[in-house]
Amino acid sequence: MSKGITKRAENYSQWYNDIVIKADLAENSGVRGCMVIKPYGFAIWEKMKAQLDIMFKETGHENAYFPLFIPKSYFAKEASHVDGFAKECAVVTHYRLKTTENGDIIVDESSKLEEELIVRPTSETIIWSTYKKWIQSYRDLPILINQWANVVRWEMRTRLFLRTTEFLWQEGHTAHETSPEAIAETNQMLDVYADFAEQWMAMPVIKGSKTESERFAGALDTLSIEAMMQDGKALQSGTSHFLGQNFAKAFDVKFTSKEGKEEFVWASSWGVSTRLMGALVMAHSDDKGLVLPPKLAPIQVVIVPIYKSEEQLKTISKKVDEITQKLKDKGISFKFDDRTTYRPGHKFAEYELKGVPVRLAVGMRDIENGTIELARRDTLEKNIYDIKGIENVIEDLMDEIQQSIFRKALKFREENTHKADTYEEFKDIIKNKSGFVYAHWDGTPETEQKIQQETKATVRNIPFDSPEEEGVCMVTGKSSKKRVLFAKSY
Amino acid sequence: MSKGITKRAENYSQWYNDIVIKADLAENSGVRGCMVIKPYGFAIWEKMKAQLDIMFKETGHENAYFPLFIPKSYFAKEASHVDGFAKECAVVTHYRLKTTENGDIIVDESSKLEEELIVRPTSETIIWSTYKKWIQSYRDLPILINQWANVVRWEMRTRLFLRTTEFLWQEGHTAHETSPEAIAETNQMLDVYADFAEQWMAMPVIKGSKTESERFAGALDTLSIEAMMQDGKALQSGTSHFLGQNFAKAFDVKFTSKEGKEEFVWASSWGVSTRLMGALVMAHSDDKGLVLPPKLAPIQVVIVPIYKSEEQLKTISKKVDEITQKLKDKGISFKFDDRTTYRPGHKFAEYELKGVPVRLAVGMRDIENGTIELARRDTLEKNIYDIKGIENVIEDLMDEIQQSIFRKALKFREENTHKADTYEEFKDIIKNKSGFVYAHWDGTPETEQKIQQETKATVRNIPFDSPEEEGVCMVTGKSSKKRVLFAKSY
Repeated sequence: MSKGITKRAENYSQWYNDIVIKADLAENSGVRGCMVIKPYGFAIWEKMKAQLDIMFKETGHENAYFPLFIPKSYFAKEASHVDGFAKECAVVTHYRLKTTENGDIIVDESSKLEEELIVRPTSETIIWSTYKKWIQSYRDLPILINQWANVVRWEMRTRLFLRTTEFLWQEGHTAHETSPEAIAETNQMLDVYADFAEQWMAMPVIKGSKTESERFAGALDTLSIEAMMQDGKALQSGTSHFLGQNFAKAFDVKFTSKEGKEEFVWASSWGVSTRLMGALVMAHSDDKGLVLPPKLAPIQVVIVPIYKSEEQLKTISKKVDEITQKLKDKGISFKFDDRTTYRPGHKFAEYELKGVPVRLAVGMRDIENGTIELARRDTLEKNIYDIKGIENVIEDLMDEIQQSIFRKALKFREENTHKADTYEEFKDIIKNKSGFVYAHWDGTPETEQKIQQETKATVRNIPFDSPEEEGVCMVTGKSSKKRVLFAKSY
Repeated sequence: MSKGITKRAENYSQWYNDIVIKADLAENSGVRGCMVIKPYGFAIWEKMKAQLDIMFKETGHENAYFPLFIPKSYFAKEASHVDGFAKECAVVTHYRLKTTENGDIIVDESSKLEEELIVRPTSETIIWSTYKKWIQSYRDLPILINQWANVVRWEMRTRLFLRTTEFLWQEGHTAHETSPEAIAETNQMLDVYADFAEQWMAMPVIKGSKTESERFAGALDTLSIEAMMQDGKALQSGTSHFLGQNFAKAFDVKFTSKEGKEEFVWASSWGVSTRLMGALVMAHSDDKGLVLPPKLAPIQVVIVPIYKSEEQLKTISKKVDEITQKLKDKGISFKFDDRTTYRPGHKFAEYELKGVPVRLAVGMRDIENGTIELARRDTLEKNIYDIKGIENVIEDLMDEIQQSIFRKALKFREENTHKADTYEEFKDIIKNKSGFVYAHWDGTPETEQKIQQETKATVRNIPFDSPEEEGVCMVTGKSSKKRVLFAKSY
């Protein structure tokens, strides 16, 4: 069929792109680096959003909305922040176009702004300039706010979902009385992200702290979840930052404590983005296309009728109606594809490409025998079941597939995770095997940089669950108390 | 109390602003013309979004996402469109800032864009440039897509929710095989908006066509719903546009019809925005603050304990838990405000300000008597009920209040709607009574403009349900077949 996709083993990067495009998830737009998220892709993102939103609200957060534009001077207030973001931003300088005498449309120079506006790359500065008005006393704390928004970071090399100039995300911004409270929040939200990744995306992740050089611009500590893609590379899938009092000091946000003292407020921020869509594609898909975990599949069950006449289709449709009613009652989403313009084989390939977890096929013989064919997208297994009770089989399968996809991804990660004790060993693994490598490092940015330059692998994070052990840095021989996680990354 | 608001009769405009600010709906930001939507305001907007989204999906639409930025040249392709929007847009001209030697942050001139990007004021151009790739045959039609997004229109005079430089909205963009289909879609979506306004916002609206001079830039026909605010002015609350083949021609979007002919695609677009928040405030609020219809209230019931000791609070809390469990079972949202930092009177005023539909107050005597005090926000009536079964009383009240608010708004509109047969009469009403005026008009832009200049009233729309009747234009005496709706407007 025309929608064939490049084999993963042949060209991983092209395979990824083919799936994103051909499964109708997203495409490049006429605007450099900006993508169009197509309805099927957006439906998956909506499912992600809905679940994350529930998890944010369960942990006490509320949604709000802050301006898209940030005055240039706001960035200047937090020194490391401007260094981190000013180099890649869209700058609004004028507010009017005009038509020239010969009909060209040009920028009206008389509409030049006194102060340029930056299209938000992240919202710490605009939000903390607002929190200043909201916070006077400890009674006003904590503030636990999340925002769903679009942000812009000017990227030179872009890839659909993974790195785009504009992307969609959520950003949490919280304000607290004490440092321990802000740290607890930072940790809590990383846990929320990890739970979401593992239980909803079926994607195992490693939680840990970023190294100093990889911290968010303005943070005292950045935590991340790192997932392994099927090429063995790591994808940073969510970050949570402990901001200390940096933004409170930059925007002069103080509160009167219970003891009557004036103190600067403590902060966290945390975010995940449409990058998760890229992670989802790369974590589970195969050479036939997308493989979706049932919890995030816009269509969980597709039903394809096999018929030779309109009359047969009518008979089959009637039977299918009974099944779909039962699926509805169980809250399982489905699509009955009775289009006459396409043949069953075409439909099978289409839903495989789109990663629909369960496919049912019903023909006249099935109706006579009271049977139905069920195909699992994840394992590609096909089996014949009794139509009676098929809704229970499907209900159980939703769980089973969700867990099976997770187990498969976990097994893949375990098989591609290594330990290296010498730098030679490390370089060999990175070059010839790929995957994750746990190794000792002396904790200095210099050594980190040397390793990156020589191998292209970086410290992904310092995993929370990496055990304490005496060791020596594989490069410098200096002492180290813990192995850290190295990998090439997206 | 400190949160007192200006009386509506004294200064309507200040009254509106006070409610928006003091009920914690929104506030101005440090960015000219851009607002911060605060958590309580955003929670109402989320309820609006959720319901509209359901209604869009029920009518067959899917969500997608298109880029924030639109290349300048795209606007040039639809002539009337550029005239309508180019005069009020944010223009991105550069993509980098840099730090000078003395530490100033300035725009890096070397990052000037070859073609400027416009921050979308509406997305017809970017979307139709995309549809060109999606549409080849009649099999690809209809396309029924909606987008939830932020848009920017550079406004000189802004007012919270009613007119802001950045606002949130949804924009539907559909593509059809035939003109009648596109027109049916345009009408259908106006009906969706009217149903939403009346049944969810409890705000009666008048459906009709805009006059030629008030049409959307690029549309053949613009339909609107118009609501009366409590100062008698009209607020355009939603629009639906029949775009004909204008955008298809501008972006060369053709399809092969069933008959094998190449034809241009027919289009509609339609939108509502955070302006609806302003409409909601102005349609129902009073001098004590916001009045929310139960269907859109983030908190439907608030429960305030009246106690003198911690022990009493404990006893009351136990009773309240029984009530809230029953409210939960009925899907009624509630808040038990057991804060010890504020007195009951303060809390009463706060929830009146925030428009919570039902307030319960429970003291020790109530517990002894098995009674509870219930206050309705809309009528300010207070009554004593048995605690037993109070959840049923509340459930019924949710409906009753929703309808009562609608009836009140409808009655207000009817009382402030007039007919004028002469221009003198018309001017007198507009000047001395305000409200809506049905009058005959000759259908010309010249007369429309004259009336606007002399009275500040405009044709809001040509109502669908205005009966056919022989008449003469009140200004020119030319014949007219139908009265149109005039009013001053926001």
